[in-house]
Amino acid sequence: MPPSGSSSRRATVHDVAAAAGVSRGTVSRVINGGYVSPRARAAIEAAIAEVGYVPNTAARNLVTQRSQAVGFVVLEPHVLFLEDPNIGAIMLGANATLSDADYQMVNLVVDSERDTQRVSRYLSGGFVDGVIIVSARTHDPIIRVLAQVGIPAAFVGHPRDLDRGIPFVGIDNTGSARLITERLMATGRRRIGMIAAAVDRDSGADRVDGFRAALGPRFDPDLVAEVPLYDYSWGAKGMRSLLEREPAIDGVFAGSDALAAGALEVLREAGLSVPRDVGVVGFDDSAWAVRTQPQLSTIHQPAAKLGAQAADLVLRQLRGEPYASEGILLPTPIVWRGSA
Amino acid sequence: MPPSGSSSRRATVHDVAAAAGVSRGTVSRVINGGYVSPRARAAIEAAIAEVGYVPNTAARNLVTQRSQAVGFVVLEPHVLFLEDPNIGAIMLGANATLSDADYQMVNLVVDSERDTQRVSRYLSGGFVDGVIIVSARTHDPIIRVLAQVGIPAAFVGHPRDLDRGIPFVGIDNTGSARLITERLMATGRRRIGMIAAAVDRDSGADRVDGFRAALGPRFDPDLVAEVPLYDYSWGAKGMRSLLEREPAIDGVFAGSDALAAGALEVLREAGLSVPRDVGVVGFDDSAWAVRTQPQLSTIHQPAAKLGAQAADLVLRQLRGEPYASEGILLPTPIVWRGSA
Repeated sequence: MPPSGSSSRRATVHDVAAAAGVSRGTVSRVINGGYVSPRARAAIEAAIAEVGYVPNTAARNLVTQRSQAVGFVVLEPHVLFLEDPNIGAIMLGANATLSDADYQMVNLVVDSERDTQRVSRYLSGGFVDGVIIVSARTHDPIIRVLAQVGIPAAFVGHPRDLDRGIPFVGIDNTGSARLITERLMATGRRRIGMIAAAVDRDSGADRVDGFRAALGPRFDPDLVAEVPLYDYSWGAKGMRSLLEREPAIDGVFAGSDALAAGALEVLREAGLSVPRDVGVVGFDDSAWAVRTQPQLSTIHQPAAKLGAQAADLVLRQLRGEPYASEGILLPTPIVWRGSA
Repeated sequence: MPPSGSSSRRATVHDVAAAAGVSRGTVSRVINGGYVSPRARAAIEAAIAEVGYVPNTAARNLVTQRSQAVGFVVLEPHVLFLEDPNIGAIMLGANATLSDADYQMVNLVVDSERDTQRVSRYLSGGFVDGVIIVSARTHDPIIRVLAQVGIPAAFVGHPRDLDRGIPFVGIDNTGSARLITERLMATGRRRIGMIAAAVDRDSGADRVDGFRAALGPRFDPDLVAEVPLYDYSWGAKGMRSLLEREPAIDGVFAGSDALAAGALEVLREAGLSVPRDVGVVGFDDSAWAVRTQPQLSTIHQPAAKLGAQAADLVLRQLRGEPYASEGILLPTPIVWRGSA
């Protein structure tokens, strides 16, 4: 590491040649794997370390017009990035698939208006060959940029209004919510409520639709507690609200496992036993599901597979291979544990 | 989005010019902000959208030898990336500082041997101007690459054997652990145990050192339960082990809040009241600390500031400004809540 002040200019082949006392051509041969004498090679390798020379992969990539990198962008409030148990698993699933194809995944954080503009510039600036977007919204300015520059892209999520030809991989939120609510009803519950988060987004609204479809004529809109975020503390608040509205509540569908964990805490404080007095089901099958007492009955969300499939959609576009341009829905099995 | 098969070649200025029916020079003037007639401008903008032209920022960056991007690499087991409440906050703190300086943060996941090699290549290939490394280990092959290429870098963490001139920002794990253990002792506890995670790394080993220093002659090595990971389920296992070894235990220092949360669950199951029967303290002041009943007394770890300071260390090197080359330790105040 050079001392402060000298690190602001990158070393060149010229610097290496000067430090090693050889010609630039000899340095190039070492860099490109050609023959040079062992003595010159040793001098050049020492000089490379000394001057801090960086082989210019970026320049070579300009020739091939490939960066061999794929962006990964999460267009959600940053609190979700810290809290959502799925996002990390989606990211690792995508990374494993890209890594197998020798692509570098670069994860770009969008945490402010300024980030949005800069990330858009980065995506359109030739730094990545493709991009995976985790979001259920299509109105983000970044999405418009993608459509303009025509960079191969895939969504994780299932936006209803996706009409720009960008493929997606997602789950059937409506069908999954309906299925687990029906299973909860089959345990004999009479008054079932829902803690619904993020209903301003498709994934959140779809889960309410599925809940309503399962209950049919028994659906009571007063037993849907809306909260902003899929998180433990909002689960607790939602549960308190449901208990106030209906003290005789005996079933709860929480829109995520974190919400369900918060609900369990409030039910315990209220002296209610789960699943004897109240049956609780969640959504995600995340780490939360096996941390609670009792463990959660829930919908398994295949987070790592969502990431892997999205990466595959981008790679297929890069290779010119056929891909499911209309989108892919992955199955979401029920995992039945002790909470209902 | 072009159909599959046609997206593997990037559109050029030439394509835009042909589609707009103007010269390449006219296209260049639009791209570089020069004057052209409104009619030509409209035609060129339409052509840019039509052919999916990407302004070649990467090429311009080669001229300035700057990518205007800084890497962010976490060299920890990937389970930590999903579980550790600090890493997300460190990342957002770093991003905010880089964003203010108009740098793009690119987060590189290292999840396998193959990733290690590819990320090393990426860091040395001119794609980033600097890098932030979250790790307490210095033996990783990536660190050797950094030292060789001399790319401006900073560590988040406080590795003991850091001798390659890379500055760090961290906390005093030993001092912090000593402080909170002394505070726990001051509540009158007689038999205090520790749940210690990741003792094979400096941060983990330092916390045991601080615990031992606080207890002095009262330190009993049999009351240190070692577990591999800073996580809820290992906290529960560690607490069960301590209760077996010493049923009369009345104080516990958990090496993280997640461990402490697991310990609280086991104490509740054992019919012990916290803090009446057993006082419990954690480490981190993460979201866990306010989720437990009672809430945790703990050490505040300034995660966002760690990220921001590491970003500042890299930016200072990039600008040739002086920086704390020997490293920075941030203060870690005690936050006393209800668990002890």
